[in-house]
Amino acid sequence: MDHALRLARRGLGNVWPNPAVGCVLVREGRIVGRGWTQPGGRPHAERMALDAAGAASRGATAYVTLEPCAHHGRTPPCAEALIAAGVTRVVSALTDPDPRVTGRGHAMLRAAGIAVTESVRADAAAALQRGFLTRVTLGRPMVTLKLATSFDGRIATGSGESRWITGEAARRHVHALRLTHDAVMVGGGTARADLPALNIRGFGAVRQPVRLVIANAPMPDLPPEDAAHGPLWVLPGPLPEALAELGRRGLTRVLCEGGGQLAAGLLGAGLVDELVGYTAGVLLGGDGRAAVGPLGLQHLSDAPRFRLAEARPLGGDLFHRWVRHA
Amino acid sequence: MDHALRLARRGLGNVWPNPAVGCVLVREGRIVGRGWTQPGGRPHAERMALDAAGAASRGATAYVTLEPCAHHGRTPPCAEALIAAGVTRVVSALTDPDPRVTGRGHAMLRAAGIAVTESVRADAAAALQRGFLTRVTLGRPMVTLKLATSFDGRIATGSGESRWITGEAARRHVHALRLTHDAVMVGGGTARADLPALNIRGFGAVRQPVRLVIANAPMPDLPPEDAAHGPLWVLPGPLPEALAELGRRGLTRVLCEGGGQLAAGLLGAGLVDELVGYTAGVLLGGDGRAAVGPLGLQHLSDAPRFRLAEARPLGGDLFHRWVRHA
Ligand SMILES: NC(=O)c1ccc[n+]([C@@H]2O[C@H](COP(=O)([O-])OP(=O)(O)OC[C@H]3O[C@@H](n4cnc5c(N)ncnc54)[C@H](OP(=O)(O)O)[C@@H]3O)[C@@H](O)[C@H]2O)c1
Ligand SMILES: NC(=O)c1ccc[n+]([C@@H]2O[C@H](COP(=O)([O-])OP(=O)(O)OC[C@H]3O[C@@H](n4cnc5c(N)ncnc54)[C@H](OP(=O)(O)O)[C@@H]3O)[C@@H](O)[C@H]2O)c1
Repeated sequence: MDHALRLARRGLGNVWPNPAVGCVLVREGRIVGRGWTQPGGRPHAERMALDAAGAASRGATAYVTLEPCAHHGRTPPCAEALIAAGVTRVVSALTDPDPRVTGRGHAMLRAAGIAVTESVRADAAAALQRGFLTRVTLGRPMVTLKLATSFDGRIATGSGESRWITGEAARRHVHALRLTHDAVMVGGGTARADLPALNIRGFGAVRQPVRLVIANAPMPDLPPEDAAHGPLWVLPGPLPEALAELGRRGLTRVLCEGGGQLAAGLLGAGLVDELVGYTAGVLLGGDGRAAVGPLGLQHLSDAPRFRLAEARPLGGDLFHRWVRHA
Repeated sequence: MDHALRLARRGLGNVWPNPAVGCVLVREGRIVGRGWTQPGGRPHAERMALDAAGAASRGATAYVTLEPCAHHGRTPPCAEALIAAGVTRVVSALTDPDPRVTGRGHAMLRAAGIAVTESVRADAAAALQRGFLTRVTLGRPMVTLKLATSFDGRIATGSGESRWITGEAARRHVHALRLTHDAVMVGGGTARADLPALNIRGFGAVRQPVRLVIANAPMPDLPPEDAAHGPLWVLPGPLPEALAELGRRGLTRVLCEGGGQLAAGLLGAGLVDELVGYTAGVLLGGDGRAAVGPLGLQHLSDAPRFRLAEARPLGGDLFHRWVRHA
């Protein structure tokens, strides 16, 4: 299953509106097929693994990171495909919360005489597929908020200088982070002040993320969609509605890169699922520009809280990742 | 030498005005004596190790984290003691920068026919004995600045609530940090607002650190010195002069615990040697109280910079330690 989870990871940022799934077929202790959701969401992981295995899938065990689909969408259901291929056992990590599927994929397999083991590495699978789960259960994409700041939480000096606070390794890491998200989002203030490219550079030819701007006032011209720039979507507030609209459009993973007002709006509305920090060993002082705008908290107990998931040095900076308290 | 460095560490915060030194005596591959600078600075590490070894020090090798002293202070010179005990080889980590000693301890040993190897694990020894080195070379104690903040660098909500931002493990860790410092320092604002105890709690009977307040205006009553509270010293600014005075009084390691104005003053004057961060997974927003006051930086290149030394989870918080760029 860990192998299947690693394969699933390849799909992150590339497969919306579908979940990023991984599948490994094992027969007589040997891997005979591997698959992961392909760019755009099709073929599914199971289809790819079955095609790779060919006749060897007969009698094999399939390890899948999500319950195989049971409904006829734009591809025939994977549960049917596994049955047709003669797989005799399925180990799955997670029940699909999608109401069109939930439990039916597993039931279809069992009805065909296949042994099904559920909930193997369920926590890891839920973390990996959080964007998809969030869209299905909350009707909005998962939101990752990135904050690249000085030690004291600033993004510019009092005089306005901001290049560069974090180092080259952190900036490159942000591009890798964009790779695993469906869209990159900024507020209208940042869009107007910086005309940011919001694309992925330095990783060859990749599927560019959707460029999202949350703005009500008129927007300056940003580059049109091309090979180096994803689609540009400008949405007005309020934020819960904007995110619901993104959910309807199929986005599962959105990376917010500021500015401070948008970050505060998302945090205040409880819409941030993961927090990624890049902290530089530099201090800019209380007169520097804050990374997060005013939250207007009356009580500390009202403050948004996160749980530390990861922390490590990155270039000269400190990388740390936090996930929302359940 | 690593063993000697671990022994030396026991003295941190306990031995000012002396350096915290460690000494291990090895004969025929066996440790025959171990010593570290004792509370108050005497006996020295070498004396303690020689006493422990007794006759076994004849023919032994001494590993010492600092050049043995060669001057008659309140104790006879350690170099003489090593010679008298019949030690045949000395491995030392660092030349003592104290002008009364520098190089003379090693020379005295060599003149007596002892083989001397210098600069073994010099970097680790310099890091450990940084407080002493700073006092001898810059005439002031080393300053550690502690900042316990929200993810976005705040110490209170806009409405003023501040208990508790970081967790129990972090707060306990701060007491352990105080243990390794000679003094704990705050600004007059913090002293007046919080009447802080500035002592070590939860570690049994320990040598309490000096309580330092930097203030020009009158101070409220703080508890007098007793078993649970170290001496109380109130010093006016400017900061470089206050620190020079602390150097003259023999302090080697000072821990600054705020507030924001004092932290900014120290940072702006280039007087912070180490930065210790406890970051909580909570956001308080741009209207929260900043941990560091205004620095008035015109250029990012003027900002104080630090190098990441350590980062790890601590309870629910993130602990990170940075050292000043050389
Ligand atoms: N160094 C960095 O890491 C970094 C990163 C990002 C930004 N920045 C800097 O931050 C500055 C911009 O930050 P900012 O805080 O002023 O602006 P911002 O958050 O980027 O954008 C604010 C604008 O976004 C829209 N918006 C935000 N929250 C909203 C909500 N809840 N509902 C509806 N609309 C909402 C509004 O657009 P309308 O006005 O159109 O209604 C609002 O005026 C720029 O100077 C930029 O350079 C720095
Ligand atoms: N939660 C936490 O972790 C934490 C930690 C510490 C403090 N705090 C809070 O912070 C607040 C106090 O912070 P603050 O920034 O107002 O005050 P502060 O930095 O503690 O003290 C400021 C005062 O210290 C003296 N001072 C500071 N820098 C100086 C300099 N360069 N030269 C000479 N004197 C100097 C001055 O004293 P005189 O006025 O006597 O001249 C000045 O008014 C309190 O509310 C406290 O609760 C919170």
